[in-house]
Amino acid sequence: MKLWSKGFEINKEIERFTVGRDREMDLYLAKYDVLGSMAHITMLNSIGLISDDELPQLLRELRAIYDVCERGEFVIEDDIEDVHSQVELMLTRALGDMGKKIHSGRSRNDQVLVDLKLFTRAALRSIVEETKSLFDELLAKSEEYKDVLMPGYTHLQIAMPSSFGLWFGAYAESLADDMLFLQAAYRMTNRNPLGSAAGYGSSFPLNRQMTTDLLGFDTMDYNVVYAQMGRGKMERNVAMAMASVAGTVAKMAFDACMFNSQNFSFVKLPKECTTGSSIMPHKKNPDVFELIRAKCNKLQGLPQQITLIMNNLPCGYFRDLQIIKEVFLPAFEDMKDCLSMAAYIINRMEVRTDILDNPMYDAIFSVEEVNRLAADGMPFRDAYRKVGLDIEAGNFTPDKDIHHTHEGSIGNLCNDRIQSLMESILKEFNFERVDDAEKKLLAV
Amino acid sequence: MKLWSKGFEINKEIERFTVGRDREMDLYLAKYDVLGSMAHITMLNSIGLISDDELPQLLRELRAIYDVCERGEFVIEDDIEDVHSQVELMLTRALGDMGKKIHSGRSRNDQVLVDLKLFTRAALRSIVEETKSLFDELLAKSEEYKDVLMPGYTHLQIAMPSSFGLWFGAYAESLADDMLFLQAAYRMTNRNPLGSAAGYGSSFPLNRQMTTDLLGFDTMDYNVVYAQMGRGKMERNVAMAMASVAGTVAKMAFDACMFNSQNFSFVKLPKECTTGSSIMPHKKNPDVFELIRAKCNKLQGLPQQITLIMNNLPCGYFRDLQIIKEVFLPAFEDMKDCLSMAAYIINRMEVRTDILDNPMYDAIFSVEEVNRLAADGMPFRDAYRKVGLDIEAGNFTPDKDIHHTHEGSIGNLCNDRIQSLMESILKEFNFERVDDAEKKLLAV
Amino acid sequence: MKLWSKGFEINKEIERFTVGRDREMDLYLAKYDVLGSMAHITMLNSIGLISDDELPQLLRELRAIYDVCERGEFVIEDDIEDVHSQVELMLTRALGDMGKKIHSGRSRNDQVLVDLKLFTRAALRSIVEETKSLFDELLAKSEEYKDVLMPGYTHLQIAMPSSFGLWFGAYAESLADDMLFLQAAYRMTNRNPLGSAAGYGSSFPLNRQMTTDLLGFDTMDYNVVYAQMGRGKMERNVAMAMASVAGTVAKMAFDACMFNSQNFSFVKLPKECTTGSSIMPHKKNPDVFELIRAKCNKLQGLPQQITLIMNNLPCGYFRDLQIIKEVFLPAFEDMKDCLSMAAYIINRMEVRTDILDNPMYDAIFSVEEVNRLAADGMPFRDAYRKVGLDIEAGNFTPDKDIHHTHEGSIGNLCNDRIQSLMESILKEFNFERVDDAEKKLLAV
Amino acid sequence: MKLWSKGFEINKEIERFTVGRDREMDLYLAKYDVLGSMAHITMLNSIGLISDDELPQLLRELRAIYDVCERGEFVIEDDIEDVHSQVELMLTRALGDMGKKIHSGRSRNDQVLVDLKLFTRAALRSIVEETKSLFDELLAKSEEYKDVLMPGYTHLQIAMPSSFGLWFGAYAESLADDMLFLQAAYRMTNRNPLGSAAGYGSSFPLNRQMTTDLLGFDTMDYNVVYAQMGRGKMERNVAMAMASVAGTVAKMAFDACMFNSQNFSFVKLPKECTTGSSIMPHKKNPDVFELIRAKCNKLQGLPQQITLIMNNLPCGYFRDLQIIKEVFLPAFEDMKDCLSMAAYIINRMEVRTDILDNPMYDAIFSVEEVNRLAADGMPFRDAYRKVGLDIEAGNFTPDKDIHHTHEGSIGNLCNDRIQSLMESILKEFNFERVDDAEKKLLAV
Repeated sequence: MKLWSKGFEINKEIERFTVGRDREMDLYLAKYDVLGSMAHITMLNSIGLISDDELPQLLRELRAIYDVCERGEFVIEDDIEDVHSQVELMLTRALGDMGKKIHSGRSRNDQVLVDLKLFTRAALRSIVEETKSLFDELLAKSEEYKDVLMPGYTHLQIAMPSSFGLWFGAYAESLADDMLFLQAAYRMTNRNPLGSAAGYGSSFPLNRQMTTDLLGFDTMDYNVVYAQMGRGKMERNVAMAMASVAGTVAKMAFDACMFNSQNFSFVKLPKECTTGSSIMPHKKNPDVFELIRAKCNKLQGLPQQITLIMNNLPCGYFRDLQIIKEVFLPAFEDMKDCLSMAAYIINRMEVRTDILDNPMYDAIFSVEEVNRLAADGMPFRDAYRKVGLDIEAGNFTPDKDIHHTHEGSIGNLCNDRIQSLMESILKEFNFERVDDAEKKLLAV
Repeated sequence: MKLWSKGFEINKEIERFTVGRDREMDLYLAKYDVLGSMAHITMLNSIGLISDDELPQLLRELRAIYDVCERGEFVIEDDIEDVHSQVELMLTRALGDMGKKIHSGRSRNDQVLVDLKLFTRAALRSIVEETKSLFDELLAKSEEYKDVLMPGYTHLQIAMPSSFGLWFGAYAESLADDMLFLQAAYRMTNRNPLGSAAGYGSSFPLNRQMTTDLLGFDTMDYNVVYAQMGRGKMERNVAMAMASVAGTVAKMAFDACMFNSQNFSFVKLPKECTTGSSIMPHKKNPDVFELIRAKCNKLQGLPQQITLIMNNLPCGYFRDLQIIKEVFLPAFEDMKDCLSMAAYIINRMEVRTDILDNPMYDAIFSVEEVNRLAADGMPFRDAYRKVGLDIEAGNFTPDKDIHHTHEGSIGNLCNDRIQSLMESILKEFNFERVDDAEKKLLAV
Repeated sequence: MKLWSKGFEINKEIERFTVGRDREMDLYLAKYDVLGSMAHITMLNSIGLISDDELPQLLRELRAIYDVCERGEFVIEDDIEDVHSQVELMLTRALGDMGKKIHSGRSRNDQVLVDLKLFTRAALRSIVEETKSLFDELLAKSEEYKDVLMPGYTHLQIAMPSSFGLWFGAYAESLADDMLFLQAAYRMTNRNPLGSAAGYGSSFPLNRQMTTDLLGFDTMDYNVVYAQMGRGKMERNVAMAMASVAGTVAKMAFDACMFNSQNFSFVKLPKECTTGSSIMPHKKNPDVFELIRAKCNKLQGLPQQITLIMNNLPCGYFRDLQIIKEVFLPAFEDMKDCLSMAAYIINRMEVRTDILDNPMYDAIFSVEEVNRLAADGMPFRDAYRKVGLDIEAGNFTPDKDIHHTHEGSIGNLCNDRIQSLMESILKEFNFERVDDAEKKLLAV
Repeated sequence: MKLWSKGFEINKEIERFTVGRDREMDLYLAKYDVLGSMAHITMLNSIGLISDDELPQLLRELRAIYDVCERGEFVIEDDIEDVHSQVELMLTRALGDMGKKIHSGRSRNDQVLVDLKLFTRAALRSIVEETKSLFDELLAKSEEYKDVLMPGYTHLQIAMPSSFGLWFGAYAESLADDMLFLQAAYRMTNRNPLGSAAGYGSSFPLNRQMTTDLLGFDTMDYNVVYAQMGRGKMERNVAMAMASVAGTVAKMAFDACMFNSQNFSFVKLPKECTTGSSIMPHKKNPDVFELIRAKCNKLQGLPQQITLIMNNLPCGYFRDLQIIKEVFLPAFEDMKDCLSMAAYIINRMEVRTDILDNPMYDAIFSVEEVNRLAADGMPFRDAYRKVGLDIEAGNFTPDKDIHHTHEGSIGNLCNDRIQSLMESILKEFNFERVDDAEKKLLAV
């Protein structure tokens, strides 16, 4: 049973164990590693550590590697340890020893820090965009179905009149609140750790403000100890923001799966998003919504997972942080998938317009009736008793004309104000600043 | 073993089970319940549901109950179910049936929603203030000890020169990032759910914008279904923001406990924050920091705890939400305690100024030496080998003069910029708006 | 904002912070602290550290304090730090300095360790018993309703015939599996840490086997470092076992709440376990089941909460462990409450016997029909098409006679074998051994 | 931004989303799927649904596919949905339509249930074995170093004499307790769900006891609704048991990383398990232990992750369960890797034997000295004061001769009894029963 008596070559086993899935994870970072290096060497040139002759050559080669990444063709060759080494290797193949200069004045620690920041900044942005798409679909559906009533539940007991306008709109507004956390995450992410070296700075006269500007960061992670300490923390907080979005989407998926049950039959899902049964022709299983729910529930566990890995570690780098990459980097794909699938299915979803014709739901109008009688002068208690007795005796004929007029109610959804709320939050992201910086940096 | 054969009175048992700790929890909300009612009846008056004669009387009595709360004398009497009933009882005792009018046009659901929002808004603000206090202490210590060097570690291996200026400053900057999440939480909290009734609005022509303004909320929770759905979600997201702060404080406490070990002896904690041993006179146990760490670690579990309670519930109110109060409401006290205790202990903490005199730490200067030799023209590999051999042979005399000058390094802490960063985030909270509104509302 | 400028007396504040809820928590342990001391001094007498004259006096007084605990009258007086000090105080009041001898040869650390073990052992036992009661109710209901059919769902789509016999029985069997984890937790708990002192043993010639036998433990926690390290770990693992039970109960509560919705109307809950609405007479809100669900979901978060507090701490005692008491000790009451309330409500729950008369559910019999036609010789594909077309055309008359005969199916529930399974696991607990030891120890 | 305007083919996207990583996951199950089918058709033959002529042909082909799996050559071909379809395809290629008969009388649901049970049973067994290997290494080291003293800490303050015998032995004993939970998990796993069909049984006269015996299960999951409901629950509870082991290993790794710091220098790790620095020759980074810690901390989050996915779902199958496979199936490899790497590194680890020569640790002997003086007749308080003053004045000469003799102390480690404890738990697993059944089933 002993490792060393199993015929394994120990050092290979240890390498397998320590490298783990890290090379696979580094592929997520390749493009950003190149970007970080382009900013770094531009700065090195400004402080005289790279010559005016070398800079353009290096930038040109890095730009070429960036294109390789963009085309999805970047690979980490066998025996090459990580993305940083692979990029350096490609540079030295092209430019000889000059290629090694990109590593001057920094350590692998701040290289991976800046890679993670740049990757996460871009990944968060695409989450923001997909969230906005789903928001748009929900709001469109809310408008489309604003006059279609449905029962509202409390305790899963039928309670009061509601509408699909309200139901779709509720999830849209929920996403607007989630956007606040995506923004906090984005602002935290959009700070520059480059120059922190191994977490204690360097004796080189680095110009960190310059790389901050070149890479379009809002500010630096000033304190170099904090720049290092922010690793793990950024991932956890970004995961929290995604968990907020995921919570909204999972809940919506739960409702939709339930409304799709024959016991409700409130909605009809697009057929390409359901599966049937080889033996039961009546089944319309909401598989896509179920998988959205499950993936979003998994995402809701991500902050805790990261916390467990990094909690109660003293300050300073530890190899433990590598494992966070495995759970963090692929999470964005899952989140994006869930958002775009949800937008698709919401766009195609139909709702039943005759739900309240079923007399089973008549009771939801009882409150209105009691209020009406009371408004007409009957004492409340008497009105309540009368309606109660009418319902029991089967004599209750509900007036299904709903006149809810206040803000946010069936008759006044305030979707325009929800839209404005979302837009105002989105504006604060200021993605253009990043676009400008990256475009400039890549223009070699 | 059967409940009904144990001599318990079943209905009492069921009441005990269902009420649980809810009356105790409602005490946290009393003051805010009164505030919400003051805004609500002012609005009711504007739409003609409360007369101009009744309004001042009701406001005056509510104001008096508010004062009772402020004095810490509010109690929920035996057999009174919750805070809403207790307030109504006090009003009817003073004003007769008129007192019941505060409940017109709303349900217990939106009453507790607005209570939770107002309570949480105030609680978050005090967390923000305590966080700022700790930040100030940390930054002051960073300045005070900016020239005191200590070893920097990676992998808990001594690595590079660091300083107490860096160490204290790192945690200050971490709190500035945490503040972004407190702000997202605050903005989400600061929306008005009042008027959502049981989650489906009401047929009364409520003026929700008016109560929004009266209570100093930024906006409404527009959609009434979302207003209800936000319960649980707000708590979880606020808990996430607190978990971010708690993560920073726990990590700092971990470092401090370790630095207090005789194997490091980097710091000296205020004696009232340590305990000795009845049998070992040399012990200075860092109990206060340990309890800060443990409480902050407990707080880091809060988001998950809330998620577990509310996840995979369809939309609409459920009694499950009551249990969230038990874990959420008392958490702020714990958080505040940890922050103020941490500020106290940081303020009194002393650091050892001669740590690096211990030759054990000489090796942290080796990188500088290699760089220096290389800068003087010796090939890097030769320089590295020479220094390595010198260290092994005991011939290495480190030059302990550190000249780190770049932003965020030992010689250039950027504490002023960290301070500005924090201030700019704080300014966005705009607490004055709330102060103004509350002052106006209470001025009866 | 500073603690020391708030007019608080610092030392009082620090005491409040460090003591926290610990004295309240210690009340859970009082009885077991006395028991531990009785065993300890009996052993001390055997190694000559307490005289034959002193032992009976001390035992008698401890026995009297035990009775105080049993009557629920034990209090920790003001200014007394913890349960250990309170017991010692009571002893010295009665017996003078002799009372202090109970502390010889041990430290507070192993005193609290043994208290926690004895408390948890008893608490687990009562969880086991309440679990068994719920199991019995479920199995009784399964038998009572074994012939009442209901639709079975997959994807919340109506799918196949099921029965209340299956539904109740499923949760019973789930509890039998949960019992395996309660047993693992019990066995881990039932080991003696006494004698480990501060986690490094003592130079006294303690007889740990003797206290192990006196207290009815299965074995020692042999290694004294492990005895200390087991703190926190025991709590987490016991919490895991409870989470397993809680998961079963929460799921059952979820089903019941859903089946109680008018959209299902499968069950009728006892009226004292539901609440109505002041304005909607048709509502039967399943509050008790909702609170059971919420409390059980909270309990499912307990293992993670404990993990967060104790994870990544090096070996040896830390004050952090105190905070675990706050979340761990009260959890048993919650668990027991949920189990006994669930047993009560299950016992009183009625089921609708005519569910499948609703033609909406006819489709669940389609599989049987296809199989029948196929068995009669029609090719499967043809049979499937015929039944599908019949259903669509409204010509499908289901044969609702179900003949499921295999083990575990509608017609053959195997409740007797589930009963045997549960009994065989229960037998392994061997509670009698503990009863015998405790009775003997208390017989003074 | 819309999915359907991105140039993606919708149905491909939906397939990609729904299949996800499922085909990859199914490779873990292939071997067990074959085993389950062999048992199933043997039973079908016994009830006349497969002829005596067909059975041996089918068994022979399945046996051949089993060998393909064993050789690691099993693949799921493009366009084949899952492992079940792939196996059926291979059978029909060899045997024509007869190959389809293996699916008679069951559904995909109980096919995957039995696959998961068989896979998990085998995976748990290998965890048990690796845990035992690590236990053996730890106990061997405990014996080897039983006389090497080290300081024992409380609050990370040096406190009392400890030993490497105690330290290694503590983690061994911890694994013995963990084994109790592995066993509970194993017993829960080792029940047969086959025959539960889609969770509601079948009208075929299946002989479930027969497949239970053929596959070496202890019992059935009797109730078919429970058999389905056990999915997710089994995974969570097995994850809990692994989390218990992982907690022990992570804590040991934490200690080892700390002891490897120059501030402790208690241990020397095998050089192939540490990394150096390209610029700091003194560094011995404990990467392997750090990665063990991080992976084990990740594993400690697994139960919560699974809980989040399956909690608050009503009974009956949901597609959500598919996502659990992604986090559950690969976890065993991680756990095994950590255990075998830990065993390797423990085996090669050396300890420093002169730690206590450092006068910094003298104080740990003060308790002994006080006790000695007290035993010689000096009043305790005087003895305490004298030793305290001696330490302060630098006059304290500790007597480093430790005479701890009680069970579990430095001088009496009880390793033989810890060994017996472990062996007795291991015996209860009764793996032979499973071996016998599988061997018989495969002997075609």
